[in-house]
Amino acid sequence: MADSPNCDLKSLSPLQLFERVTEQGEKVRALKAGKAPKDEIDVAVRRLLSLKLSYKTATGQDYQAGLPPKDLVLINNGTTKEEDEDLVDPWNVQTSNAKGVDYDKLIVRFGSSKIDTDLINRIERATGQKPHHFLRRGIFFSHRDMDQVLDAYENKKPFYLYTGRGPSSQAMHVGHLIPFMFTKWLQEVFDVPLVIQLTDDEKYLWKDMTVEKAYEYARENAKDIIACGFDVNKTFIFSDLDYLGKSAGFYKNIVKVQKHVTFNQVKGIFGFTDSDCIGKISFPAIQAAPSFSSSFPQIFNGKENIQCLIPCAIDQDPYFRMTRDVAPRIGQPKPALLHSVFFPALQGAQTKMSASDPNSSIFLTDTPKQIKTKINKHAFSGGRDTIEEHRKYGGNCDVDVSFMYLTFFLEDDDRLEQLKQAYTSGELLTGELKKVLIETMQPLVAAHQERRKQVTDEIVKQFMTPRKLAFEF
Amino acid sequence: MADSPNCDLKSLSPLQLFERVTEQGEKVRALKAGKAPKDEIDVAVRRLLSLKLSYKTATGQDYQAGLPPKDLVLINNGTTKEEDEDLVDPWNVQTSNAKGVDYDKLIVRFGSSKIDTDLINRIERATGQKPHHFLRRGIFFSHRDMDQVLDAYENKKPFYLYTGRGPSSQAMHVGHLIPFMFTKWLQEVFDVPLVIQLTDDEKYLWKDMTVEKAYEYARENAKDIIACGFDVNKTFIFSDLDYLGKSAGFYKNIVKVQKHVTFNQVKGIFGFTDSDCIGKISFPAIQAAPSFSSSFPQIFNGKENIQCLIPCAIDQDPYFRMTRDVAPRIGQPKPALLHSVFFPALQGAQTKMSASDPNSSIFLTDTPKQIKTKINKHAFSGGRDTIEEHRKYGGNCDVDVSFMYLTFFLEDDDRLEQLKQAYTSGELLTGELKKVLIETMQPLVAAHQERRKQVTDEIVKQFMTPRKLAFEF
Repeated sequence: MADSPNCDLKSLSPLQLFERVTEQGEKVRALKAGKAPKDEIDVAVRRLLSLKLSYKTATGQDYQAGLPPKDLVLINNGTTKEEDEDLVDPWNVQTSNAKGVDYDKLIVRFGSSKIDTDLINRIERATGQKPHHFLRRGIFFSHRDMDQVLDAYENKKPFYLYTGRGPSSQAMHVGHLIPFMFTKWLQEVFDVPLVIQLTDDEKYLWKDMTVEKAYEYARENAKDIIACGFDVNKTFIFSDLDYLGKSAGFYKNIVKVQKHVTFNQVKGIFGFTDSDCIGKISFPAIQAAPSFSSSFPQIFNGKENIQCLIPCAIDQDPYFRMTRDVAPRIGQPKPALLHSVFFPALQGAQTKMSASDPNSSIFLTDTPKQIKTKINKHAFSGGRDTIEEHRKYGGNCDVDVSFMYLTFFLEDDDRLEQLKQAYTSGELLTGELKKVLIETMQPLVAAHQERRKQVTDEIVKQFMTPRKLAFEF
Repeated sequence: MADSPNCDLKSLSPLQLFERVTEQGEKVRALKAGKAPKDEIDVAVRRLLSLKLSYKTATGQDYQAGLPPKDLVLINNGTTKEEDEDLVDPWNVQTSNAKGVDYDKLIVRFGSSKIDTDLINRIERATGQKPHHFLRRGIFFSHRDMDQVLDAYENKKPFYLYTGRGPSSQAMHVGHLIPFMFTKWLQEVFDVPLVIQLTDDEKYLWKDMTVEKAYEYARENAKDIIACGFDVNKTFIFSDLDYLGKSAGFYKNIVKVQKHVTFNQVKGIFGFTDSDCIGKISFPAIQAAPSFSSSFPQIFNGKENIQCLIPCAIDQDPYFRMTRDVAPRIGQPKPALLHSVFFPALQGAQTKMSASDPNSSIFLTDTPKQIKTKINKHAFSGGRDTIEEHRKYGGNCDVDVSFMYLTFFLEDDDRLEQLKQAYTSGELLTGELKKVLIETMQPLVAAHQERRKQVTDEIVKQFMTPRKLAFEF
């Protein structure tokens, strides 16, 4: 393949060009090692130089062995991750730092852009609404092409929101609500359609679970999502296992993505191996396809090319780097992204919370008593060992999980700032800070439970029925 | 993975066990080569012996390196194909023998069973019908589990037929009709439902073709298939690109197959590489899924476990060897198979006909004049160089393409036998034999064209609409 000089290099993505250069480099080395005839080596070297030139033209960067183009950096590949770097992919989040993952470094490594004050101000101007505290506090901290979404919005061009969840169990914790709370706000201030993917097929493929169980979890999780307060006239929630068999457009986009991504690529991006099942290997296309409006002909009247904006935790970014690489080659716009930080486990910010460990977080099914006990018993404290020391030196908000949780859930900026100063100065004790968190979380979870109770199977069915929404296209 | 002694080996398929033994063997070699501690080597060797025992228990055969279990022999793998063997897989048929592929050898290599006189007689007894000339003449020559289908049929248990076509172009040739002619006969004598898959997604993935074009070819090809005379009340024809978005069961079966087949396996069976797109890699599951009745809930009333019988050319067998390996692990019956020989090109039996070379065969769109010219000009002759020699030594029916075509299309056994004797004895000249073929093919193709003209878009739509057929389940 790499031999064909007639192949149109302009049609290749930066990652494909990168692979071609790498392959050709290996070929040159092999020829030299095998003491091939000089003219044969010369031909191969000329081809290599020409490929490197194409790469530079396409990416604006010189080719560097082991350093793929920025937009598709191979995060799972040992050669690109330095020893002390955080590990972040859809299945793992690891850091040795008690403050959590270094997000500024992640922006550089992933090649995304920081959500800075200018962008936040622009969102405020465009929508006429005070920016959500997740934006003001850097909880959504990184983006791709959000400026283009705002350009379009300001020019009255439509866009839509896409987010999702892997329904691995019935139990969702408060961290799972973050993308949905923010997406709900985005939908309200921009007044746009929203699609929510429940990847029950992914969970079937990755876990020891039947298809039926995965679909049941999807419907149960849909109840918690609906309980966040989404508008049924503007929101479509779908399970892959269900919707794939009901959509005239979804599978067509899946197969288009599948044609334009090689095993080499998913191996690099997701770390798949030859022992992985072919379902896992082709799954990334299924998470990619809802980025294209033609996957939802019932909503967009069959229109392609409507801009998509994806709010998600940054660990999902590899899927959408891949999607953005493929999009122009199948004639579709690249989806824009808004990335959130991870929600910390009660035990500390080194890891993401896990739905399988009941003590690692506050679950949406917890009673007020369970919430109180968990916070008092498990929430990692940035306070000092003794009251005397605490009064003298003060607590450390950067590592205190109770304070972190409050940055997510306490909306009052002034109150949060007061708490921070009081805790840092030693005036506020750990137990007192925990009390504030308990009093914040108990009514929040209780209210969620109350709303969830009202989500009947009939309402779930309404949200999950493919249909036109309250928008004209 | 191979290390875990607690893993339940009984749940593994023969091929998976084979892979485990191979991996463990490599591990032992690596430990020895690396001069690992003796006790570590001992543990690995004990594990290897235990795996070999499991393999023998499961397959009844001793493990032999490079020789996978018979039901899933790796046909594309250089180590198992001898130098002088024919190459047969879904994309290639190659032989150096003018008589064509050695089918007896293929039966041994693929591990299928010969369709012998006993089986043909049993079909005759079960159906009360004279066996089709494709059976009598060894054109359908090999099977898997046809006896079980007959057992079921004799016990009044239902089964269904599944066949298909990859719609690579609008032009179909007479060879493409073989599986459909035979399937039509099977459907009539057994009176069972039939599903016909048009793998337009496959063609999109493999060829330089848009999704829209592939679907258009599928509908055009459906017209030729319908023109074979199928009963719309008993037959469902579907395009993958279309039906996947309309079925509540198809995708669920696809993802079940995809969970139980690894990249290693499809690499072995189909020869995929790391540079192949993930669509190709996962496609075999899409050809596998119609083998399970739950892919068609509208036909089978949601019933799983209805036996499937697949008539197809033998080059499609790798897909169904894979399907048969997976079936018990997803709680489904293995599909049974009836395999046909390949239809020879006009130029000779060394290769399968190609839809892309107009002179390689008689197309369903050919005029009587084109048919005459093609046969006279291109049909490889088993006759002698001069009339004198031909009269003296006679012609060779084993390599004569006109005679081969007559075995496919001339239904009259006596007439065929007469022609054979006359040609072999030298009494009948090549030109005269070709004339018989021309006179056989011209009305056959003309009648097809006449029937095809009557197949309106409306009729195609009826066949391709998911619906209940004229059977109760």
